[in-house]
Amino acid sequence: MNNFDEYLMNYVASFKDNLIKEAMIYSLDGGKRFRPNVLFSIIKGCGLEENDAYPAALAIEFIQSYSLIHDDLPGMDNDDYRRGKLSCHKRFGEDIAILTGDALLTHAFECISNSNYDDKLKVNLINILVKYAGLEGMIYGQLLDVTANTNINKEQLFEIHDNKTGGLFKYACLAAMYIASSKLDIEIDYNYYEALGSKMGIIFQSQDDLFDIIKTENETGKSNSDSRNQKITALSFMSVDELKEHIDFLFKDIKNYLSKANFDTKYLLEILERMQNR
Amino acid sequence: MNNFDEYLMNYVASFKDNLIKEAMIYSLDGGKRFRPNVLFSIIKGCGLEENDAYPAALAIEFIQSYSLIHDDLPGMDNDDYRRGKLSCHKRFGEDIAILTGDALLTHAFECISNSNYDDKLKVNLINILVKYAGLEGMIYGQLLDVTANTNINKEQLFEIHDNKTGGLFKYACLAAMYIASSKLDIEIDYNYYEALGSKMGIIFQSQDDLFDIIKTENETGKSNSDSRNQKITALSFMSVDELKEHIDFLFKDIKNYLSKANFDTKYLLEILERMQNR
Repeated sequence: MNNFDEYLMNYVASFKDNLIKEAMIYSLDGGKRFRPNVLFSIIKGCGLEENDAYPAALAIEFIQSYSLIHDDLPGMDNDDYRRGKLSCHKRFGEDIAILTGDALLTHAFECISNSNYDDKLKVNLINILVKYAGLEGMIYGQLLDVTANTNINKEQLFEIHDNKTGGLFKYACLAAMYIASSKLDIEIDYNYYEALGSKMGIIFQSQDDLFDIIKTENETGKSNSDSRNQKITALSFMSVDELKEHIDFLFKDIKNYLSKANFDTKYLLEILERMQNR
Repeated sequence: MNNFDEYLMNYVASFKDNLIKEAMIYSLDGGKRFRPNVLFSIIKGCGLEENDAYPAALAIEFIQSYSLIHDDLPGMDNDDYRRGKLSCHKRFGEDIAILTGDALLTHAFECISNSNYDDKLKVNLINILVKYAGLEGMIYGQLLDVTANTNINKEQLFEIHDNKTGGLFKYACLAAMYIASSKLDIEIDYNYYEALGSKMGIIFQSQDDLFDIIKTENETGKSNSDSRNQKITALSFMSVDELKEHIDFLFKDIKNYLSKANFDTKYLLEILERMQNR
């Protein structure tokens, strides 16, 4: 277990023992922590320590985990497997899954509000967390997703992915800069970092669409429900080979974009390397 | 429409038009605003204006509304009616209801973080909102509620009500004092105000248990699902007449408790008068 996972599990361990706490631990366990690692790699590229970003990263994992639990519910995608095991509602029942998602979402804000950040940084982080997780971010992407018909075009699919998957990557990039600028003399180019998060999200989702087809459920650790739910994915618009090529292009594009960054990009490039080989 | 309702609806109107926004407005509409009124009555008793408390009160209504939407879901209480009309999932579908609850919960924090309060007050309010709405407050009460068996005793029922219903009343009382103390030289007696909220919550829930039996669904505006779901209520331990007497006792008790308050209690006493006659 790495340090961040220890920090995460210690945080949850401080709750009173009960079934929701158990379901929280169950659901948080086994995540790949991609988004937190993006945040850490930028923080380190600014010359700060990884753990300077732990509270902000914890909020990401709480939000990510709640959204997967609610997304898997029978009233949503109705998925039985997640992270290589039964989804939360299959393991604990639907009522506990709904409440566990609600608890993770609620306490995501506490991860920040109760941290040792100064009040100004806390408020900035909470504002961007709402912006990218809420009705103009991730939840908006979910709405587009559940209401999309099979006639949507590439641009509309991009909008879904950019909001649904991109939301927390955008938060990760901007959170890193808010934390860095609270300690160092660094200017926040809001648009640059938002676009960086957007690019990361699109790559991540394009890979997921590909893996849903070329990998088994055993390998992805989750139900590949997109075809059952007749979901439009990147593969509705291109072949497997074309998508692979497109993903290569996206990696080249983001590396080029990073050459204009105002932080040392070597740690983020390592993350991208790992993403490209996952 | 009073000023607070205008403020509330203007806030929601600022979201981009979509189905979740529509479902938010649908669900927020028709609430009795009891908890916000408790907050306003204390604020006025401290000599401040009602609208000094609008952002903190808006968060209450967002949390209250999300909790009702999720509580009504088929996986929870499975209630078809709420506030005199179809419940959110009956009107908009289960997926939209889940997402609308999530959106209200997420943006409850924005009501505070994006307000004109100073950063210290914002952080204090967010911390108590998590405390009383989260896994050590309202959600804990929900957990006790969904896992309770029919053998629970009076004390356990009290614990459910104190967390589930009392949570937002406690937040209302303490939020009032945090706002007042940010503008005036007033000391916050945390325990006093938490207990005041607790007393308000217990009265409110005891009345609800009574109304579920003596009023029709038409009068309460919601499904009386407690007996269908074999829920234990105050009436599992006493007769209708005994409960009426008990509620009278609770009103006497809280009025006596208010004689020790450090604010002018006349506005809150008016609220209690209205509660007693509802």
